[in-house]
Amino acid sequence: MRLYSYFRSSAAFRVRIALNLKKLDYETAAIHLRRNDQGKPDYRGVNPQGLVPALEDGGQTLIQSLAIIEYLDEIHPEPPLLPTDPLGRARVRALADIVACDIHPINNLRVLRYLTHQLGHEEAAIGNWYNHWIASGFAALEPLLVRDARTGAFCHGDSPGLADVTLVPQVVNAERHQLDLAPYPTLTRIYENCMRLDAFTAAHPSRQPDYEA
Amino acid sequence: MRLYSYFRSSAAFRVRIALNLKKLDYETAAIHLRRNDQGKPDYRGVNPQGLVPALEDGGQTLIQSLAIIEYLDEIHPEPPLLPTDPLGRARVRALADIVACDIHPINNLRVLRYLTHQLGHEEAAIGNWYNHWIASGFAALEPLLVRDARTGAFCHGDSPGLADVTLVPQVVNAERHQLDLAPYPTLTRIYENCMRLDAFTAAHPSRQPDYEA
Repeated sequence: MRLYSYFRSSAAFRVRIALNLKKLDYETAAIHLRRNDQGKPDYRGVNPQGLVPALEDGGQTLIQSLAIIEYLDEIHPEPPLLPTDPLGRARVRALADIVACDIHPINNLRVLRYLTHQLGHEEAAIGNWYNHWIASGFAALEPLLVRDARTGAFCHGDSPGLADVTLVPQVVNAERHQLDLAPYPTLTRIYENCMRLDAFTAAHPSRQPDYEA
Repeated sequence: MRLYSYFRSSAAFRVRIALNLKKLDYETAAIHLRRNDQGKPDYRGVNPQGLVPALEDGGQTLIQSLAIIEYLDEIHPEPPLLPTDPLGRARVRALADIVACDIHPINNLRVLRYLTHQLGHEEAAIGNWYNHWIASGFAALEPLLVRDARTGAFCHGDSPGLADVTLVPQVVNAERHQLDLAPYPTLTRIYENCMRLDAFTAAHPSRQPDYEA
């Protein structure tokens, strides 16, 4: 398998974690987002959306991180990233979607660039924007985690799954942007539990072949 | 089942279509987003994220439209909203996520309000923003649909599924905002095919009990 990735992309980070949890080997094809590799014709041929990640597997190209991870979970079921009961699956997918739909896309590089170039905002306003959407999502996640008996060492029970795979890259982004995590103790505890596992730490931006300080 | 909905919410619109395709009865609990019903303590008790939709089913509350729809598809499998093969499922989920992650959340009411109130933008700039993100997503969807033999009368084959359920509300929003749809003939053809089905038209904002002109 070949993963089109960028060290800093949190959507690619999710897929790296999932591949590691499944113990699947892959090679990294680095797409440098800050240099706009994602807009070049070669990469548009891989993914017309011009975003990372994309995953090549047996001649097929898959896009969209959550769709890729559900695919990996279907063809390589062990260890499972979703519970078996429909209500549990809905809960885990919803926790993942709070990050993947309602935080991350609003803070994506292309959106921040629009705020800078088309709308003329300075770094301070963009920093406020960035942390506002993370805080808004985390303020929903914290009660959903702390008030639900299905929360364990991880978001759902005592093994890592899809919700943890999406949560961890978002917390890494929050830390990089110095968001105060004190209001989210449950979320932070789960993050710390994840970061004790090699599958998560090996997927960290700083451990990628295309990492730049 | 009770659906917490707002006639104009395209995430609620998705769930309404799915419920209709499955021929499931439900009652509508209207949450008036423009009047900020979603931020009141009563509704925060239903959904701490303060967004619609939420679905109550047998004493359980589910949130996040895609997670709700996957749940409905698991417990009421007919007619199926996802294909059976993992590659097909990944394709349909990716098409759905292009709308549900990369268009819709960036244009959500709370984001437009932030642009207005915190960042001080006028209606014209917000209109440009809105259509920019739809056009960006549709420009990816069109080649993914037209170049893939799995596209049929609908996004994937000849029966409506999850990708159509997310596409249609986004096209309705695009039309309302007068986005030129001429560059997207395949997407438009599929939209028109969907709108020949009662399940889609009955879910339209103008047909909801809380509709306001």
